[in-house]
Amino acid sequence: MITKAAIYHRSHSSYSYAYDKETLHLRIRSAKGEVDNITLRVGDPYDWATGGGGGNLNAENASGWVGGENILMEKECETELFDYWFCAVRPQYYRARYAFLLESCDKQLLLAGEKQIIAITNRENDPALSQLSNFYCFPYINPTDVFNAPSWVKETIWYQIFPERFANGNPAISPENVLPWGSQDPKSNSFFGGDIQGVIDHLDYIQDLGITGIYFTPITQGKTNHKYDTTDYLKIDSAFGDEETVKTLIEEAHKRGIKVMFDAVFNHIGASSIQWQDVLKHGADSSYADWFYIEQFPLIDESKRQSHSKDMLNYRAFAFAENMPKLNTENPEVIEYLLAAGRYWVRNFDIDAWRLDVANEVDQRFWRRFRDELKAIKPELYILGEVWHDSMNWLGGDQFDAVMNYPLTDAILGFFASDTLNANQFKSAVNELNVNYPINVNEVSFLLLDSHDTPRIIDKCGANKDKAKLAYLFQFTQTGSPCLYYGGEIGLDGGADPLNRKCMIWDENKHDLNMKQHIMQIIKLRKTYPALRHHKMTWLVIDEAQNSLIYQKKSQGEQVFIAMNNSDKASELQLPGALYGQAVTDIYNEKSCQLTATLKLPAFGFAVYKINA
Amino acid sequence: MITKAAIYHRSHSSYSYAYDKETLHLRIRSAKGEVDNITLRVGDPYDWATGGGGGNLNAENASGWVGGENILMEKECETELFDYWFCAVRPQYYRARYAFLLESCDKQLLLAGEKQIIAITNRENDPALSQLSNFYCFPYINPTDVFNAPSWVKETIWYQIFPERFANGNPAISPENVLPWGSQDPKSNSFFGGDIQGVIDHLDYIQDLGITGIYFTPITQGKTNHKYDTTDYLKIDSAFGDEETVKTLIEEAHKRGIKVMFDAVFNHIGASSIQWQDVLKHGADSSYADWFYIEQFPLIDESKRQSHSKDMLNYRAFAFAENMPKLNTENPEVIEYLLAAGRYWVRNFDIDAWRLDVANEVDQRFWRRFRDELKAIKPELYILGEVWHDSMNWLGGDQFDAVMNYPLTDAILGFFASDTLNANQFKSAVNELNVNYPINVNEVSFLLLDSHDTPRIIDKCGANKDKAKLAYLFQFTQTGSPCLYYGGEIGLDGGADPLNRKCMIWDENKHDLNMKQHIMQIIKLRKTYPALRHHKMTWLVIDEAQNSLIYQKKSQGEQVFIAMNNSDKASELQLPGALYGQAVTDIYNEKSCQLTATLKLPAFGFAVYKINA
Repeated sequence: MITKAAIYHRSHSSYSYAYDKETLHLRIRSAKGEVDNITLRVGDPYDWATGGGGGNLNAENASGWVGGENILMEKECETELFDYWFCAVRPQYYRARYAFLLESCDKQLLLAGEKQIIAITNRENDPALSQLSNFYCFPYINPTDVFNAPSWVKETIWYQIFPERFANGNPAISPENVLPWGSQDPKSNSFFGGDIQGVIDHLDYIQDLGITGIYFTPITQGKTNHKYDTTDYLKIDSAFGDEETVKTLIEEAHKRGIKVMFDAVFNHIGASSIQWQDVLKHGADSSYADWFYIEQFPLIDESKRQSHSKDMLNYRAFAFAENMPKLNTENPEVIEYLLAAGRYWVRNFDIDAWRLDVANEVDQRFWRRFRDELKAIKPELYILGEVWHDSMNWLGGDQFDAVMNYPLTDAILGFFASDTLNANQFKSAVNELNVNYPINVNEVSFLLLDSHDTPRIIDKCGANKDKAKLAYLFQFTQTGSPCLYYGGEIGLDGGADPLNRKCMIWDENKHDLNMKQHIMQIIKLRKTYPALRHHKMTWLVIDEAQNSLIYQKKSQGEQVFIAMNNSDKASELQLPGALYGQAVTDIYNEKSCQLTATLKLPAFGFAVYKINA
Repeated sequence: MITKAAIYHRSHSSYSYAYDKETLHLRIRSAKGEVDNITLRVGDPYDWATGGGGGNLNAENASGWVGGENILMEKECETELFDYWFCAVRPQYYRARYAFLLESCDKQLLLAGEKQIIAITNRENDPALSQLSNFYCFPYINPTDVFNAPSWVKETIWYQIFPERFANGNPAISPENVLPWGSQDPKSNSFFGGDIQGVIDHLDYIQDLGITGIYFTPITQGKTNHKYDTTDYLKIDSAFGDEETVKTLIEEAHKRGIKVMFDAVFNHIGASSIQWQDVLKHGADSSYADWFYIEQFPLIDESKRQSHSKDMLNYRAFAFAENMPKLNTENPEVIEYLLAAGRYWVRNFDIDAWRLDVANEVDQRFWRRFRDELKAIKPELYILGEVWHDSMNWLGGDQFDAVMNYPLTDAILGFFASDTLNANQFKSAVNELNVNYPINVNEVSFLLLDSHDTPRIIDKCGANKDKAKLAYLFQFTQTGSPCLYYGGEIGLDGGADPLNRKCMIWDENKHDLNMKQHIMQIIKLRKTYPALRHHKMTWLVIDEAQNSLIYQKKSQGEQVFIAMNNSDKASELQLPGALYGQAVTDIYNEKSCQLTATLKLPAFGFAVYKINA
């Protein structure tokens, strides 16, 4: 029996997309364990024995579709509820009509098309197998519509820096109320004097870690320590440095093979900006009045309002933050103002990427324009949107190259940190997220365990560094573009905002060198073994009782498998036939070994083995 | 028991979209008959008892989501496999996080969120009810991203004209090889001399039918009788008339309250165009070489090639039609050339709509640009794409206002014409198609029973005019923008292309006046009763045995129900309580009546009753 209600496919979605200019990827979902195999029936819509070639499939003389080819799909993965099936095809004429033939162990045979799922009796020549009007359609692979992210992103390892807290390289420009570096836990309004020169001074440190990209939270002018309340998009915050320092930073980074990503805060502007101040002063008469969404004049008096409460806010803001009035990105003046800022840093400073703050609340028309204009200047620019939820809507090729993959973060935290997911649930969650997007989207996805917006991973793990190490290892063996939040490598801790923004520790005696060694080693492994970066992942062993698992990463001839024991007791895993007795290299510890029937791992232990060629 | 695998929702899809600048529509799917009720839990993402208002939901002090409101969803419709549930909400701050609480008769309670479907024990204060990271997100209703089709389309009744076959108003410009009007069945290369003046001459006839829009297949220069092989996008075909005649046509149409839609054939150009001829002549040296997708020079000699066969075609074409080379719509010159044509007819001739031929094979970036440029000139322009399959990808608000709804055509034909769908299957098919799109998309969908690309409805019905009348009645009582193919109203017949393009009959003695009366009456009903145009449809009676059904249309206070007997025997339908004994008006026959317990319909009979207020 095949549960029809569980079968799912939709064209032009994560189930059906152009992977590149010639390749179509097709997926279909069925209820878990019900279907033995699925055959993709695919061909050119106009390839008919007679007629059809003129385009009108309803013409008098169109008959006998001969374009149909049958391809056995591969089972891509399984989740708690579903099996997912995959197939890549290269339509000769860039067009495809297709349907899916599902077969169960009890020999039920169904054809799943766009309009119905029907029972088939004859898999060779049932007329339904050529009834194109019931087939799904991918009408044309047009190159310009193909999702096309810069390829360097797949190879990049990011380091996120919160500039106010990374390093103070120029005390002369620190704010007046600066606190001694690391002298106390940060509060929401603390300043410690971190700046751009501080980053320049430590580029060698960053390079030595193996980092190849730095993501900076905003460095343009703002009142707060986080600068997400931009007051001038073209000006470096004076407490961070000046344009010359930034030019040096980027040149020095580039010299070291390190890309640079800046943070564009275009959803809202800082209340101290000249634009908002003008509106406060002149009300509806301000030439900036239409830059915002103002419900009523006069604007509320901020001093009479409880901070960030929704009461009395008579203009649209980010969240209910009175210091962050929302910009009207449908106003041509605002559009030009923001695009000019976007262009400025790319053209004049040669930045390599834009991270877009609160990207999901800005209109998509603006982002399409942003992409077009910025990619025209620098086609290899990486555009990363801050979207925490399902983001397919922004990842169709017309807007972002990637989003911050917080849903994967949550799955990783659920298994390694909070123990709210067991091994099978973790596998299911990761698989669901992977098939939720096209493979080319996953390949440049921004992978993170923590950020300035979340507690640090070490805190999430209840200070259990071994758990954090497992989480990092998992992160760095997934396809995408992994990011390390500054200080994670030396065990810097910190709970929720503002504690996640502590000053970086520069006293090496206070570094967790064991963690640093781990981070450097997994970065090195990721760079050395393409399999670790490749999207292809197979779960070989899931042992719920021992909270342990083994998964395999594969790329061309290379096979690496990663075993993890996410429990506080030693575990012993039965190895599947494919591994039993294999000669492998323990690439983490850089030594050869021979596998036996089982694999023993200490509490919170792990192993990374490459099958010897 | 609730089948988890059947539950479906995805944000930013037909399940979750902005209906207007303030309203969010949410749908969820469950397996048929399993769920008693579904409660939408929805609220502002930043509305927390403490914290959150600053935007960081992970901040130390964010706790206690208080934004959550619980709204009972309505059961929108059911299909063979599923129940669909619907709810409209107006988020105060244009933002929403939401999840669905599903309850079954055996009291199973599930919360369906973005990342998982979980069992809930306490529907009042289970912590999962406020765990926003598992909720779906509609981050912001930005007006510019809201699907926004011209409102006049909902009220329009179209008439499709194939100009070469409608009327010959100016014999002086007929092509040399013209055949006497209607003297024989058309062949693919026949010419009968139809022209623009012929249409002008019959505008009163068209107006009298009740038509409020005319869709013309191409009238610009081409070699064929159908003109889908455009040779000059700015020039009226000389056999059809000149610019002045077209200006008169449009002015006269507008005087009569009739909108005008032209057909843009931008996927390909005619082989006789100067551009293609130049490439044939100069090969790779032609300045137009990059206007096309040429695999190899020299281009094939058409004379050595079997027409429309795929052999030897060494350039991309529409289908395998050697006379229709595909245009490279990524080439800026081509883009400007086509956009200029798009603008020309809107600016200089004031056309009201563009129908886009083979729209699904042209890149979407081009269509976004087309929409932006054309809507800037005439915001109320209707943009209709020719897409025969699932079209959500083009209907997100950034490209088309509508597509030709052939999938609905197929469902109607399946029930009324070919008898391949029984009454329940028909209901299921129609419901699936309705929930496949947002309601605002359905409201302007182009509804047709036939066209120049299909056999005529009367032929599909095996010449059974009563069946065709039922099909028309169904079409004209659906939400959307219905279209009548020229001559359908007087019983003009014709099978597949080229027979579906017969000359219009102007001898009134040869008109099927009964059919004409029917068409005029249902047009009148549609105009008079908003309920018939409204999207709200409820199936009241489905009688498989008698192949009969009753459905209700509703708009504000107005209730109309339509009963149909799609069988060759008289039927007697049990009326539901809501209709039993009701005083109604038979609005088709314009008389009052009183319903009893049953409704008798003759073979292929129907009734249209309005409940008396």
